Amino acid sequence: MSKTNRQITLAARPSGYPKLSDFKLLTPPVPTPQEGQILVQTLYLSVDPYMRGRMNEGRSYAAGVQIDEVMTGGIVGKVIDSKHSDFQEGDIVQGNLGWQEFGISDGGDLRKIDPDLAPISTALGILGMPGLTAYCGLLEVGQPKSGETVVVSGAAGAVGSLVGQIAKIKGCRAVGIAGTDQKVDYVVNELGFDAAFNYKTVSDYNEKLQKLCPEGVDVYFDNVGGTITDAVFLNINIKARVVICGQISQYNLEEPELGPRKLWHLIVKRARVEGFLVFEFADRHDEGLRQMATWMKEGKLKYRETIVEGIENAPTAFIGMLKGGNIGKQLVKVSDL
Amino acid sequence: MSKTNRQITLAARPSGYPKLSDFKLLTPPVPTPQEGQILVQTLYLSVDPYMRGRMNEGRSYAAGVQIDEVMTGGIVGKVIDSKHSDFQEGDIVQGNLGWQEFGISDGGDLRKIDPDLAPISTALGILGMPGLTAYCGLLEVGQPKSGETVVVSGAAGAVGSLVGQIAKIKGCRAVGIAGTDQKVDYVVNELGFDAAFNYKTVSDYNEKLQKLCPEGVDVYFDNVGGTITDAVFLNINIKARVVICGQISQYNLEEPELGPRKLWHLIVKRARVEGFLVFEFADRHDEGLRQMATWMKEGKLKYRETIVEGIENAPTAFIGMLKGGNIGKQLVKVSDL
Repeated sequence: MSKTNRQITLAARPSGYPKLSDFKLLTPPVPTPQEGQILVQTLYLSVDPYMRGRMNEGRSYAAGVQIDEVMTGGIVGKVIDSKHSDFQEGDIVQGNLGWQEFGISDGGDLRKIDPDLAPISTALGILGMPGLTAYCGLLEVGQPKSGETVVVSGAAGAVGSLVGQIAKIKGCRAVGIAGTDQKVDYVVNELGFDAAFNYKTVSDYNEKLQKLCPEGVDVYFDNVGGTITDAVFLNINIKARVVICGQISQYNLEEPELGPRKLWHLIVKRARVEGFLVFEFADRHDEGLRQMATWMKEGKLKYRETIVEGIENAPTAFIGMLKGGNIGKQLVKVSDL
Repeated sequence: MSKTNRQITLAARPSGYPKLSDFKLLTPPVPTPQEGQILVQTLYLSVDPYMRGRMNEGRSYAAGVQIDEVMTGGIVGKVIDSKHSDFQEGDIVQGNLGWQEFGISDGGDLRKIDPDLAPISTALGILGMPGLTAYCGLLEVGQPKSGETVVVSGAAGAVGSLVGQIAKIKGCRAVGIAGTDQKVDYVVNELGFDAAFNYKTVSDYNEKLQKLCPEGVDVYFDNVGGTITDAVFLNINIKARVVICGQISQYNLEEPELGPRKLWHLIVKRARVEGFLVFEFADRHDEGLRQMATWMKEGKLKYRETIVEGIENAPTAFIGMLKGGNIGKQLVKVSDL
């Protein structure tokens, strides 16, 4: 096969926000699967905040991407050649094949998707890693109880938009924090959050939170960090649970930011702050996906996707997402089914 | 009874470290117990870090002391007059009667002490609130497992000195952080900690912690906060538990201090930070006191007291304790048995 693959590699380690010049488009030939391997054509690529960490030197919870290596990323694709007994041409699969049009897998990281159950792109969003992150993070770490107030930052994003809706399903008051008026309108009027505010136009977050959370904050699901999180800490209740899912406000700082020390609040409020990664809760993933799919069919969970077309535009989509350009899940549509 | 009581009241709310002029010595008559009341003569007064918070305007987890009100504090004393059927003259009791030579109680906050079981002053230390704080905080919140590394700041203090010893009893590696070479020597050579360092003479806490905790930190019991805690966060292991007991480095700052943002570490390490107050674990207090007394008799738990004489010197003892002048429990001996 002499067809050309197109792939995006890491050209340079960014300082601050990534620039387009930190990425490079390569056009090697499409690889040929060996015995036991599967060739997958990418249909959708997911771009996610965690990828910013992978662009750095050194390791956080997973090894970083090397210079000239294909950027890591989850995809939904179609099997176009299989030398693996478990996969056949035409199968729709979800896997981690990176930012490229064609990828090779040995099958170990592929999950088959039934395209009749839901749009296949949802395997990268509400019925994939972001959905499980919201489900396991809120329910396992946050432990919300009916009647409690749940605040979520990054409220209109792939994870945050689901956290608020699951909080509502569990009988909680859901309050969102987001970065545009359109996002605030979306989470309140389309998703059914009880309240939300735009942190870019509100000057006193603390005052706003006091107003929107008259009974204080019992669970804070944090995707953002920084000054927004500082303000939420001032409003936590006794025995509050703060779930640290992401800290996107901090990922693109050229110099680490200082902030007020907050540990004293945790004594006064006997509160808990806990970070998590979705793969820790692997034993709940099947149940979580079934539950999310059920809620989706029942109309209790809504989602939205922001889609950019063409693998060559993946860097633009990624940078846009880091700057808050998306509502719901940010995807790159790489080829047609 | 026309005898004179001596009591220390709050004269002014301190900014920064309390000064002697923030306290006033009053000499009202000794009160007379009414029906259902008990008159207690103070033998020992406990001075503790939490009292600094009570000197502030406004409320933290408990209401503050009002100006001209007697400073709050735990005491061990002797019943010298009782109009309450449960207490008799001569009973030794522990209660919260404040910084004064004589106090009145209705009995509700008094606990009888058996002076034959242990020195009565231990009811304010190893067999009292500090002991229970170490016991419940380490075991309930910290959940140490045999073979893990437990780091404790304020290691030579009333609570910290017990935390490290309980960690050793539970099969952990105990590493202390303290503020003088004498304290470091005490916790290592007298209490049996595996290692310790003096944060006032070590310049690179992170490097020192790496050396003393070659397998990282699984439980951090924090009495201190600030830059010491910043360094420990850099060394926590996956699934670490950070127990926030106190933040004494922050209590006397005139302006709140900024510090590095640390929440990202909690994601990478899937770690938990939790504040607590000893009274939350009231259902374990009886068991805790019995266990601590047993360990003490078995020679597994040692303690030390730093004793200042005379109620008039309570402010000096308190300020000295806030500045780290004590080893073990800081007490004021108010009168002889």
